[in-house]
Parts: sequence; C-alpha cells; structure tokens
Amino acid sequence: MKCKEYTLMKKKQIILGIDPGTRVTGYGVISGEQAPIDFGCIRPPPSLSLGERYKIIFDAIEILIEEHQPTAIAIESQFVLKNPQSAIKLGMAKGMALLAAAKKGIPVYEFAPKKAKLAVVGNGRATKQQVQKMIQSLLRLPLPPEPEDASDALALAICCLHHTRNPCLHR
Amino acid sequence: MKCKEYTLMKKKQIILGIDPGTRVTGYGVISGEQAPIDFGCIRPPPSLSLGERYKIIFDAIEILIEEHQPTAIAIESQFVLKNPQSAIKLGMAKGMALLAAAKKGIPVYEFAPKKAKLAVVGNGRATKQQVQKMIQSLLRLPLPPEPEDASDALALAICCLHHTRNPCLHR
Repeated sequence: MKCKEYTLMKKKQIILGIDPGTRVTGYGVISGEQAPIDFGCIRPPPSLSLGERYKIIFDAIEILIEEHQPTAIAIESQFVLKNPQSAIKLGMAKGMALLAAAKKGIPVYEFAPKKAKLAVVGNGRATKQQVQKMIQSLLRLPLPPEPEDASDALALAICCLHHTRNPCLHR
Repeated sequence: MKCKEYTLMKKKQIILGIDPGTRVTGYGVISGEQAPIDFGCIRPPPSLSLGERYKIIFDAIEILIEEHQPTAIAIESQFVLKNPQSAIKLGMAKGMALLAAAKKGIPVYEFAPKKAKLAVVGNGRATKQQVQKMIQSLLRLPLPPEPEDASDALALAICCLHHTRNPCLHR
C-alpha cells in the first residue's frame, strides 16, 4: 500500500505557463528546474477578425495540452490595465486558456505578476530583462528566452512549480 | 440565374443576440420582428471554478448555435467598466461567444449598448425597463422579457436585424 502511494506521489509535474494576450500569447512548459520542455508564443495574424484570432489561440493551447499533457496550468491572476477595452481583450485571450484547461479538467493556478517575479528573481518589482536573465540561468538556457511573453510564461510555470512542490514530489 | 440569386437572397435571417457575463449570460434568438424563437440566460453555478463556469457558457452557446443555426451573432462591442478585474471577467465571457461563432464561421456583429437602445427604443439612453417594455411590444410578448440580460440580448439581435436588413431579405 505504502509503495503504491509513493508511486502516485512521485508523478512528474509538468507545468504549462501561459501569459495570455490577443496580439501575443506566451507559453512555457517545464517539468522541474532544468531546461524547459517547450516555450514560445502564439501570434494570430492581426488581419483576422477577433473571433478567428481567439480560435487560433484556443486551438494552439489545446495542441500544447495534447502534446505535453500538463498536470497544472499557471496563468496571471491580476493585471494593471487602466483601459477597459484592453482589459476586455486580455480577458478574452485569458478565457481561451481557462476554457482549454477546463475541457481537460487540468487544475489552473493563478499568480499575480509580482508573485511570479518574486519566485524567479526574488524581487516583485524586477524588470522583464531581469526575469529573462534569471530564467536563462535557472533553466540553463544558452540565451535569455525570447520573446518576453514566453519568458513571463516560464516565470509563471516556475512560480507554480514552487507552489505545488512538496518533498514527496521531488525525491 | 436571376431566380437562383433571388433564392439565395431570400435566405431567412436568424440572429442570435448574446449579452455576455460571467454570472449571467443573456441570449435571444429572432428571425424577424415577431415572437422570438428563443430567449433566456446561462447562469453557471458560482460555486464552480472560473474555468468550469466559462466551459458551461461556451457549451451552452455551442448548443444554441447547433439548435437554431443562426446566420449572424450580435454582441455588445463596448462596455463602460471602470474596474479592470470586472472588464477581464466580462472579456472572458465574451471570448466564449466569439470562439463559438468562429468555430462555426458565423459572422459576428458588435454593437455599442447605446446603438442597441437606439434601435429598440429610439433613445440611446433608455433604461433597462424601457428596453424590456419596447421589446415586449416589438416582439409581441405577453410579458416583458426576463431577466434583463435576455432582454438586452434580444435588443442586440433586433439592432443586428436592422443593420443587416435589406429589401431583398424581407420580401
């Protein structure tokens, strides 16, 4: 019984971080503090209608989930946007991530940008460049991850890894 | 040739109006200024996670599209929300409608709330109650449509009908 329990606990955590945006949605997949499994961004052509662009974002996230089978999805919880139109657009992009996760029953963890920066750089007010540099170092990348949307997504994934980590998971 | 063209033009317009919201998403289906085909609202249980709630909204809109085969979808274009968190939530709900429409290739028309009120009541600053009363009269309903989210969705559909209407479509 004990042995079976141990096997269950040891299940590898695969975390998909998503930094949603209508223009650029960054993503990053990690399974520990080693080289990331995947990272990059989704850039729907701006010439398409908003609906078509969200469909591209949604389909891409579904493909990422299918490919990497994440055990958790990390996403930003809080945005400081003064323009309500930008906030609505951001909400629409974020909705695609939440829907794709809900369709597969994958738990979603939300983190404030400050918390992600704190987890990665140790400073909630770190610049985007500091985050990129630190992620390069933490995940042993040859170069800082580009674009910064992908770097932010990796930061969210690292933050989520710290959050969900417990000794049993990392023996 | 002429006859074929006429047949195409005569295709019945079925408009699905959607007033998106995380708590309540109103909808209304019309095919002219007669009794609506359907109207009501989607109310995901607030106890569920946001992702599960958006999945319920998305699935319900997909079912409405499947059932009524709308030729156009009408949605609000502009919101006056000062709180960015509310704007993001609204965007997530709106994203579900845009995605469901894009998946089926149904054109989406966006109208500012003022424009919908103008189309129905003749006054862009009409109250919710005035909109409900006028919709009751226009669509020959025994009572004002409830809840007001459904009434707003019907107003959007009527606005869209006026917008897409041309003599060929209404012979």
